[in-house]
Amino acid sequence: MKGKKRLLTGLQASGTLHIGNYFGALKPFVDTYEDYESMLMVADYHALTSIKDASLLRSNIFDVVKDYLAVGIDPKKAIIFKQSDVLEHTELSWIFNCLVTVPFLMQAHAYKDKIAKGLEANAGLFTYPMLMAADILLYDTDVVPVGEDQRQHVEYAREAAMKFNNAFGDTFSAPKELILEGVGTVPGTDGLKMAKSRPQYVIPLFGSKDEITKAVMSIVTDSSADRPEHVYAIHKLFKTEEELEVLYKEKMGNYKDLKEALIEDIDSYMSPIRERRIHITDDEVKKVLEDGGKRAREIAQKKMEDVRKKIGVTIN
Amino acid sequence: MKGKKRLLTGLQASGTLHIGNYFGALKPFVDTYEDYESMLMVADYHALTSIKDASLLRSNIFDVVKDYLAVGIDPKKAIIFKQSDVLEHTELSWIFNCLVTVPFLMQAHAYKDKIAKGLEANAGLFTYPMLMAADILLYDTDVVPVGEDQRQHVEYAREAAMKFNNAFGDTFSAPKELILEGVGTVPGTDGLKMAKSRPQYVIPLFGSKDEITKAVMSIVTDSSADRPEHVYAIHKLFKTEEELEVLYKEKMGNYKDLKEALIEDIDSYMSPIRERRIHITDDEVKKVLEDGGKRAREIAQKKMEDVRKKIGVTIN
Repeated sequence: MKGKKRLLTGLQASGTLHIGNYFGALKPFVDTYEDYESMLMVADYHALTSIKDASLLRSNIFDVVKDYLAVGIDPKKAIIFKQSDVLEHTELSWIFNCLVTVPFLMQAHAYKDKIAKGLEANAGLFTYPMLMAADILLYDTDVVPVGEDQRQHVEYAREAAMKFNNAFGDTFSAPKELILEGVGTVPGTDGLKMAKSRPQYVIPLFGSKDEITKAVMSIVTDSSADRPEHVYAIHKLFKTEEELEVLYKEKMGNYKDLKEALIEDIDSYMSPIRERRIHITDDEVKKVLEDGGKRAREIAQKKMEDVRKKIGVTIN
Repeated sequence: MKGKKRLLTGLQASGTLHIGNYFGALKPFVDTYEDYESMLMVADYHALTSIKDASLLRSNIFDVVKDYLAVGIDPKKAIIFKQSDVLEHTELSWIFNCLVTVPFLMQAHAYKDKIAKGLEANAGLFTYPMLMAADILLYDTDVVPVGEDQRQHVEYAREAAMKFNNAFGDTFSAPKELILEGVGTVPGTDGLKMAKSRPQYVIPLFGSKDEITKAVMSIVTDSSADRPEHVYAIHKLFKTEEELEVLYKEKMGNYKDLKEALIEDIDSYMSPIRERRIHITDDEVKKVLEDGGKRAREIAQKKMEDVRKKIGVTIN
């Protein structure tokens, strides 16, 4: 993998995935990750800022790794590891904490949002930009795939790198954001953006054919229109416009047939992914994470050797 | 050492020690530490909140260990280790950060003092009560020797223990403060409390006989008094009142002789300590810390196994 730039992305389970997640984020990532020396980090210590339930956190770890393996990440072609298996993450975040001010962290979106809602933030949420900076910089990461709303994370990492370099000499290089081109907005069955927050309108990524059928059948159609736009918009994800041209002409006005065609297309596309997901065992996940943890630790420990010398805690 | 309670104390170099430090804190600790299973932790990661100079931090580590060995701590009878050699400290502090709120940490003295002075605190200083809580709780510490002004540290540790136990089940027991009985205030050569902040009035702990002489000769005396009170107050640390009774009667009014007697008494008390200090090599310190680090890690890793299971990041 020599010569490739390094990419790091954080994985955090957050409920059942839908095809909007798949086409908006997962697939673009799967299409891209082999161009980089990719590291996929299960962000379990970040999750602790909000999850205080061991069995939920534990099952989230299994779920998110299974999700990524199912959609096509090959653990031989990437390092998949768990943040809590590399203690150097929290160590380096402490070092960065000593370099940034409290008012600086108060500018972070996640903290500001919490306060704006009149809630008390925990100190983990407050300092997590520095844990994220550590995640990124520990591996001399070149690029971090982010959505538009996550640019700040990478900015904070760059700031931490700069502050460290200024205090202790050149050690970290500045990571860059990588904006992956997704398909744009995927509509839900109601025509609005498909979103976890409105689960009744999603098409689940790992859903059975029955679940797909139920979701597609509920797609809102407007019988006065030439073609069922919301059906078409989802269908576009699975077929070329040329293919759809023919189909939607042939079945014009026959919404039921069109929906059935869509169900078949979703199912034939998704069933291999769904099948893979079902057959990934917990033991397989453990093995992947054990192996990935070993490889990640090797890189992290080497980097921290340098960091520790630079700050003066190494005495040998 | 079975059956003994565990004690943990943090060591942080902070300039040249004086005999006020010795009689007020070091000696009482040396007299006490064998009653406990004692852990002496060089707090190098705490020091990073204020020290951004590798060679200073590094030499402070050597200095503080040499100081403690010189005054009589036997590394076979205590675990002397370096905080940065046990990554579980910063790991556990992250976990505690996720359990306490930002407003709670804003009540900490060190942070409030900084703000009161109109200064910006770094996030390390801000969250260091949770690193200190981790230091203490990682080893199921029973007692923490503190001065009156440091009680809050142990309170924060108790709070962290309680918050963790409430969230994840009984894991940590509440540590207690141990107030060591020192000699009370040791006066400086000007009669006011001997303090590092007024270095011109201290008698250095590891000073040569010349330095002791210079300091003692500068002790302020009031020739209208029956005896030189400031000389006597320091002399009391080295001789019984009975012994002094005789001496100060014999030499009444002869301040020079009394000062010379004091010089001899300080020097004969301190010279073995001073000699020991000179002969402790850097290699000896490295060996002590390496051995101590190994022993501390063993305890810490075992504890964290339990902690990690309880929070849900262990998947095996």
